[in-house]
This record gives sequence, C-alpha cells and structure tokens, in this order.
Amino acid sequence: MPALNRAALERHLPILQWAKTYNNETLTSDLVAAVIVTIMLIPQSLAYALLAGLPAEMGLYASILPLIAYGIFGTSRALAVGPVAVVSLMTAAAIGNLGIEDPTQYALAAITLAFMSGVMLLLMGVLRLGFLANFLSHPVIAGFITASGILIATSQLKHIFGIKASGHNLVELVESLLHHLPDTNWYTVVIGVTATAFLFWVRKGLKPLLLSYGLTPRLADIGAKAGPVAAVVVTTLVTFGFGLDKAGVKIVGDVPMGIPPLSAPSFDMELWGQLFVSALLISVIGFVESVSVAQTLAAKRRQRINPDQELVGLGASNVASAISGGFPVTGGFSRSVVNFDAGAETPAAGAFTAVGILIAALVLTPLLFFLPKATLAATIIVAVLSLVDFSILSHTWRYSKVDFAAVAATIVLTLGFGVEIGVSSGVGISIFLHLYKTSKPHVAEVGLVPGTQHFRNIHRHQVHTHKSLLTLRIDESLYFANASFLQDYVYDRVVGDDELKNVVLMCSAVNEIDHSALESLEAINTRLKDMGIKLHMSEVKGPVMDRLQRSHFLTDMTGRVFLSQYDAMMELLPEPKQKTVS
Amino acid sequence: MPALNRAALERHLPILQWAKTYNNETLTSDLVAAVIVTIMLIPQSLAYALLAGLPAEMGLYASILPLIAYGIFGTSRALAVGPVAVVSLMTAAAIGNLGIEDPTQYALAAITLAFMSGVMLLLMGVLRLGFLANFLSHPVIAGFITASGILIATSQLKHIFGIKASGHNLVELVESLLHHLPDTNWYTVVIGVTATAFLFWVRKGLKPLLLSYGLTPRLADIGAKAGPVAAVVVTTLVTFGFGLDKAGVKIVGDVPMGIPPLSAPSFDMELWGQLFVSALLISVIGFVESVSVAQTLAAKRRQRINPDQELVGLGASNVASAISGGFPVTGGFSRSVVNFDAGAETPAAGAFTAVGILIAALVLTPLLFFLPKATLAATIIVAVLSLVDFSILSHTWRYSKVDFAAVAATIVLTLGFGVEIGVSSGVGISIFLHLYKTSKPHVAEVGLVPGTQHFRNIHRHQVHTHKSLLTLRIDESLYFANASFLQDYVYDRVVGDDELKNVVLMCSAVNEIDHSALESLEAINTRLKDMGIKLHMSEVKGPVMDRLQRSHFLTDMTGRVFLSQYDAMMELLPEPKQKTVS
Repeated sequence: MPALNRAALERHLPILQWAKTYNNETLTSDLVAAVIVTIMLIPQSLAYALLAGLPAEMGLYASILPLIAYGIFGTSRALAVGPVAVVSLMTAAAIGNLGIEDPTQYALAAITLAFMSGVMLLLMGVLRLGFLANFLSHPVIAGFITASGILIATSQLKHIFGIKASGHNLVELVESLLHHLPDTNWYTVVIGVTATAFLFWVRKGLKPLLLSYGLTPRLADIGAKAGPVAAVVVTTLVTFGFGLDKAGVKIVGDVPMGIPPLSAPSFDMELWGQLFVSALLISVIGFVESVSVAQTLAAKRRQRINPDQELVGLGASNVASAISGGFPVTGGFSRSVVNFDAGAETPAAGAFTAVGILIAALVLTPLLFFLPKATLAATIIVAVLSLVDFSILSHTWRYSKVDFAAVAATIVLTLGFGVEIGVSSGVGISIFLHLYKTSKPHVAEVGLVPGTQHFRNIHRHQVHTHKSLLTLRIDESLYFANASFLQDYVYDRVVGDDELKNVVLMCSAVNEIDHSALESLEAINTRLKDMGIKLHMSEVKGPVMDRLQRSHFLTDMTGRVFLSQYDAMMELLPEPKQKTVS
Repeated sequence: MPALNRAALERHLPILQWAKTYNNETLTSDLVAAVIVTIMLIPQSLAYALLAGLPAEMGLYASILPLIAYGIFGTSRALAVGPVAVVSLMTAAAIGNLGIEDPTQYALAAITLAFMSGVMLLLMGVLRLGFLANFLSHPVIAGFITASGILIATSQLKHIFGIKASGHNLVELVESLLHHLPDTNWYTVVIGVTATAFLFWVRKGLKPLLLSYGLTPRLADIGAKAGPVAAVVVTTLVTFGFGLDKAGVKIVGDVPMGIPPLSAPSFDMELWGQLFVSALLISVIGFVESVSVAQTLAAKRRQRINPDQELVGLGASNVASAISGGFPVTGGFSRSVVNFDAGAETPAAGAFTAVGILIAALVLTPLLFFLPKATLAATIIVAVLSLVDFSILSHTWRYSKVDFAAVAATIVLTLGFGVEIGVSSGVGISIFLHLYKTSKPHVAEVGLVPGTQHFRNIHRHQVHTHKSLLTLRIDESLYFANASFLQDYVYDRVVGDDELKNVVLMCSAVNEIDHSALESLEAINTRLKDMGIKLHMSEVKGPVMDRLQRSHFLTDMTGRVFLSQYDAMMELLPEPKQKTVS
C-alpha cells in the first residue's frame, strides 16, 4: 500500500519523480538553460504584457510564480511557461470586449481571466477531459495561429509608427492605422524599423557571425539569444541620451520595483459571465499549443507527457499567475525549444528562470524607464511573423478540400472578425464537415470474386452476383448522422427491383451501431418485409453483436446474421446458382 | 432535351407526376379522406392556434393555403400539413421570449416566424441540405417530443381550471398553476374534465361501440374521428344555453368570418435577428417530424419521398401560411395517418381538405363564439399525451448508455429550461457524445492465426507474434478527434520496448485519414525514426491510398505500405522466425 500511494502521489506531483535523482550534473545543465531563457524572456515578458494591453511589470510577474507551479505539477521536462503571443492577444480581445477604461479594473479583469482559465484547466484535468482539445483539428489550429500572427504583427505597427490605433480584426486595425498615419512620429519610426531589422538579422545572421569570430557554438547561441536584450539596451540608452521621450517617443515609463504583489481575482459573477467563453477558449487554445510543444520535445528524449496531468500543471500555473499579479500563461513554443536546446533536464530549470526574472523585477525595472515601446513592438513582430505559415493552405488543398475549407474559413474569419469568433468558427466548421462526411458513408454493392471467398465492389471487379440477392458493404460506423442515409440508400436501390428476395448488409467495417441506426435498421427490416424481401447481416463485429443482442432487433429481423459473407451467399442462393458459384 | 426538361420539371413540381393519371376513382378516394380529415382538423386547428397564443381563426387560416402549396411541391402522397402541437409550442416559446403585449404585433411575429421558417426550408431544399436533419439523433427527438408533450399538456391545465398561468418550463408552469389555483372556476372545470374524459373514451371505446351497433368499419372510423367535433358542439351549446360565459367560463368569442386575409411578414431586421434561432429550430424540428411521417407512410405503399424536395414543399407551405394570416406549419403525425387510412391517394386530398376548412372559415365561425377554451384545451391534452412515451429511456438504457444519457439530458433540459434550450442541447449532446466515442477508437494488437493468413487480437486468440514486430489494427477512421489518441497509444506502447524494430498499422477498417491524422502519422513516423523503429502500413483502402499519395507522407515514411498484413509479416520478420510462422 505505501508503494501504491507513492506511485499515485508521483503521478499527481511529477516533481517527486525527478527530484530524487537530482544531482550536480543536472543542476549545472538546468542553470545554464535558465540563464539563456531568462535573457530571452525579459524583453518577451514586457512585450506580451504590452500586447495584452497591460502594464509591463505584469509580464514579469506572469513569468515567476507560474514557472514554479508548472515545475511542481507539470510532466514535461523542458516546457517553459509564461505569457505567449496568441494567448496575450486573446486576453486583449476578451477584456477589450468589456469596454473597461480604468487601468486598475482592466488589470483586475486580466487577473480574473487567468484565475478562471486556471480553474477550468484544473477541472478538466481532474475530470480527465484532455480529449476536449482533440476537437480542434490540426489545420484549424494552424490557420488560427497564422491569422493570429498577422493580427498581432499588424496591431504592433502602431508602436512602430508612434501613433494610436485599435481594432479587433484586420479591417478595423488597418483602417485605424491609416486614419492615424498622419500623426507618425519619425523618431519612433527610426527606432522601431532599426530594431525590427536588427532583430530579423539576429535571427539569421548573428550566430554564423559569432561562430566566424571563433566563439564556441554554445556561446554563439547565447549571444544570438541575447540579441533582443541588446536591442533593448541600445534603444533605451539612445532614447535616454537624446531625450527622445520629450520628442514624442513613447516609453515604458515607471515600472514598479519589487517582488510580485499578492493579488486576488474578482468574484463579481457578472464579470465571470462575460469572461466565461473567453476563458474557455484561452484554456483550450493554450492547452493545445502547450501540449503539442511538450509532446514534440518529450519524444526527442523518449520521455512521456501525460495530457491530463498537463492540464493540472497549466491550471496551477494560471492560478499562480492570478494570485501574483499576472495574466493568462501557457507553454510557449520558442522559449521551450530554447530551454530544451540549452540543455534543461528537469523543471528545476524553470524554477531557476523564475529566480532570474525575479531578480530582474527586483533590480532592473528602473533601467526600463526609457525603454521605447517601439523596441518591444519590434520584438513581438519578429517573434510572431515566424508563426505565420500559409503552407498549410497548399498542403490541405492538395490533400483534402474539406480540410482546406476549414483552414481557409478559420483564417478569413479570424482576420475578419477577431480571434474569438475565428477559433470558435474553426471548431464548429471542423465538426460540421466531419459530420457531413460521415453522414454520406461509402456503401458498395459487392459480389463474390470467382474462385475465392472474397467479396468486392461490383463496379470495380468481375464478380458473381445473383438477381435475387443484394449485398451492401457499409464502410462506416452507423450512427445518427448517417442512419437515414442508409435507409434512403436501401429504399432507392430496392424499389422497383421485383426479383429481389434477400438483402445482406455486410458489416465488416461497421465499428458501432447506435440507437438511431438501430431504429433505422428496424425501419429497413419492416419496410423490406412489407415488400416480401428478407434482411440479413454478415460479418458483424463482436462488440456490435453484443449490443444488438440486447435489443429486439435480432428477434424481429426477417433474415439471419451470418458469420461470413460467403456463408450468406451459399445459404441464400437458389440451388442451380449455388453450383455455378462454388 | 424536352423529355429531360419534363423529368426535371416533374422532380421539382411533383404535382405534374400524379396529375396526369388522376381519374374518377382517385377523386372519390381523395374526397372521402378529405371529409374525414376536415372534421378532425377544425377543432385541432383552433386548439393549436390557442396553444401558440394566437387568435383561433389563425389556426383555420394555417390549414388552407399551406395544404394547397404542399400539394403542388410536396412528394408525399398522404402527408397532411397544418398547425401541429410541438411546432405551435415552439412558436409560443419563440414569440414569448420577445415580451410582446400587443396582440396585433404578436400575430405579426407569428406570421414573420412562418415566413422565415419557410424561406429557410426553401433555401435548405435548394442547397440540398436535407442531411442537416440527420444531426438530430432519434433518441434525442423521441426525448424532445415526450418532454414537449408534457409541457404542452401542463400548459393547457390553466384552461381546464379557468385560471391564468404562464411559463416556458415545467417548474414555472407548475408554480404559476399552483399560485393561481384558488381562482379556479368550477363551471370551467366541469366542462374541461368532462370533455377530456369523453375524448379519452372516444379514442379507445367509441369505435368498438359503433361497430357493435352494426356500423361498417369505415363509418365507425369516421364516427370516432368526429368525437372532438361532438365535444365542441355539445360544450358550445351547453355554454350558450346556460349562459356560462357570464359565470366566468372563458369562450373563444368573436371569430372573424371570411376567407384568409392577405398578410405580409414584418421585415424589421431586429425582429428577424431575435427570431432567427427559433425559426431555424422550428424549421429543423418541423422537417424531421414531417419527413419521418412521410417516409413511414410512403414505404407502406412502396412509394418514395425525396427529402430535399420535401424541404421545398414544407418551405412553400410556410410561406403560404405567412401570406394568408397563418403561423408555422408542418406535416402532422395523427392527421397524416388518418388521411392515409381514409384512403387518400394524392395530395389532391389535401387540397380538398383545404376547401373544407375554407368553408368552415366562411360559414361556421359565428357558431364558434360560445365554444369554451376548456374544450379546445381538452382536445390538445388528449392529442399530446399520446406523444408522451418514456419507453425510449428503457430501450436506450438497455442498448447504449451513451444514447440514454442524450435522451435523459434532452428530457430534463426541455422540461427544466423550455423547448428551445432543450432541443439545442439535445443536438449538442448527441454530437459531443459521438465525437467522444470516436475520439477513443478501438485499437487491437494483432497476431497471425496459425495455419491461416488471418490476423486476430492477441488478447482473444492464440496467435503468432514476434518481439521485433508490433501490429496495430485500428477500428475507426482517423480524423482530428482521434488523431492524438493514436499518437499517444503508439508512444505508450513503444516507449521502453527496446527489442521493437517495426510497427505496422493495419488499416482495413480505416475509411478516411484527414489532414490532422496525416500530421499525426507524420509525427509518429518521425518519433519512431528517432527511436530506430520503422513505421509501416498494411491493407490501406483505395481512396485512402489515393489521398496519401498526394502528400509527402509516403516518401517520408521509414517503412513501406503492404497490400496485406500477411505480406508485411513475411517481409519484416527475421529469417528464423519466418520459418516457424509459415
């Protein structure tokens, strides 16, 4: 019993699994990874807070306690949680809908959103509802992420131009940008464009350059990751030195110094009602993004992650964010890859990163006063443009028009109506198209391949058939969405065929028959009986047969259930024909 | 070409098909059926108008032009269109939500609802969206109809007690009834209870009694159908004779005499917005009810109905209702059965019924002044209690707990929150449960049955396997809802199995692989490659293979696609083992 309890405890507190083998070597690996991720995370955290419409320090707060919470409850060894682009955009959209003007109330709404999302994720984890994430098809997610990247990049252009602009969809954003374009501040443009160009070059060109100067690959890597920090330092110094803030360059300004404040979500039920759908979408999208990153990285080291426990880990992170002045967080792709590549071996790397960010919050915040918002916008633009990938359109176009339709609709709707409508429609369209496809299943009329016991489509092969016997092979499970299709199909085929005496439904590919389909089979049986035709079934799978035996159908059926289609044919054909067949 | 045009025209105007063979004999059959249905329809039409919260004459109007429109465009020979219980209740719920006080505006909203529903049905017909009705599973419909029957019967109790009461769900209705119970009018109770008891007896006892008096079965049938008319006549005379209206018995009052007025729906877009979802639900529910009745009756005479053309027929009926002062209509079960049993051979019977109702509207309306509302309520109660059937609960409980859950939830939600939430939730729950079931498909590890080329589940049969070869048979199409399940399943099985060299996915029951599943297969391939394991497939169906060949997957795959699982085993096993197997 104690051993069992230990296993159960380790399952729900993964920290217990890796803590017992923790040693100096893993410590070193984790520390190195933590330094690199911290350097990368400081500008990102500030930038994503800006994207969410929140004060910069909230980005730092959201990168401290949540990492520790994930370290305790999460199952991925390399996942780095914190504010990420898409979830920050969704946060902005969710709170933007409420029309809150007061910044304190706005921040409270963000904290509440993190708390609600955390509670939802924890609940889904406890109830083992991880499968819910499956309702988002991959092409829909890809389309959604691409469209979100475009929306995010566009929304940041205002900071590059130093103008005001707002909007929740591409049309509103572009209109608003064009409207305010005459107010462009050229100092801001110079900083913004230079920073963007520099950061793009850092992504591609810095590492090879450092290598050519003789740095070791690891140092070159750290150097390249420090690119955004360099941009932050240089543009801050320039703005400070030339007094550009007085020339209209927007700066981050006063960032409070100190440890994250203790915060509590609002428990105003009206606010909860307004944020409910948004919180659910953020939870699901955040989970899907995070779990796919975690799975990719785990597989590279032959490790396993447990999706239901991941829900608990992310839920705990969001609750931790809510009580420490943060906003919704999830596992980010680029930072997790950096963490993994830098050699992080356990979630302790995340905890060390948290300490790094905490030091930044304690010590560095006064230095951020003159940081131009344009630099942060440049960081965001460079990060999100790597999310934009239209190749999913051409892939799905080649592979399946139905999947293409789902992606295209998701992209268009996200760009045209914003993230929430975009992703909800994507889910709706995926489900609708799936039901549509299965509602018209493939049904083949089959006959016996001469000299074998195999049955094949009469339209594709030379097979034996007989006018008194119709065999239909159904290539789909039978359930409510296709129950009436089968009924129609059988009637259409049977009406007017006066020589027909037996119909056999060959069920080798039928994995389920639900109650609606059972009623359809009963209706088919009754109507065929009225026409003097017997209904039979063949090759019914075990579990399906078990269930049929619990209904009246098998007793009411005019014909029989045959183990194999060959048996059915042998039994049902009139004597002379049987000879020619066998 | 003229022949082709003729066929196309007949398809869209079914009247052309039957009109050309119309003769004296069919005329007689249709006329007799029309008389019986007319007698039955007069009190029903008045009653359902009352149920929808509308003036009695609108019930008559909704039973004239819509029948003629269906006769022209509908494909069922026996379906009788008009106001029906469930749709009338849904109309009351839809307009009740708007909080309209003015009766003229209320009637206008009903007319608008009929028009919107008509346009939606026509559109669905033209776009061939009849399959949409399939999203309602049979058990959900059965649960919904049963719960609606209870709601309707309860809502009519106020007329039996002569009190005021309102509410859109069972709790509200019962509370409201109990609250107003002290105001009971005992004259009304005597009329209401007597009429209800009489009508129940008519259903069971009148026909045998008439037969025992020596009437022919057909006359006895007509006599029994005239029961409601008798109740109407007697209670009207009693109310008139004793002046019971002055004693507080609510009467129908002034019903305008004359042909249906020309009416037009409102084109107020705000009203359209408010009624949109309701109109959609009414269209779908009305269509599902109607088409199942039509199919049942058509099959009895080996006739066919065309669901897409049925949408057009019902759409035309509702538009006809809207322009002639009516409200939403559909094909009713009991009246269609009566029509069919009475021998109706063509939709002309419906047209003759329309003439009968028209005569009633022209001549009989003054006689309805003293008709007690309690009598109409009795008609409704007796009619709808036949819809209440809880046996679907026990059937589904035995057959499938998932279907049971859908029915039980639909019944509880309809009773607790009203028809609109009830039926929407029912659809949602059906789809959710279906996705849930298919999101965890059956996957079996299989091995070779000795002496055959067949592969069976290793847990159920004695089969040959080899530690270097894992064969998984997937018993479901692969799509977004189960794509990650397969990924998890394969990783769970493979991690830690160091002797494994080859994994074969046996795809004999895989009818589709969508783009999400393709990506999962790619991920599985990549991760197995990292582990030094090859991925193969076997028995891939033709259409699935065609599609895979349009992607990169087959080139990237580490292993091969085998035509049969036996080939795969022969090829992949190391030499010594091969001999023991074959």
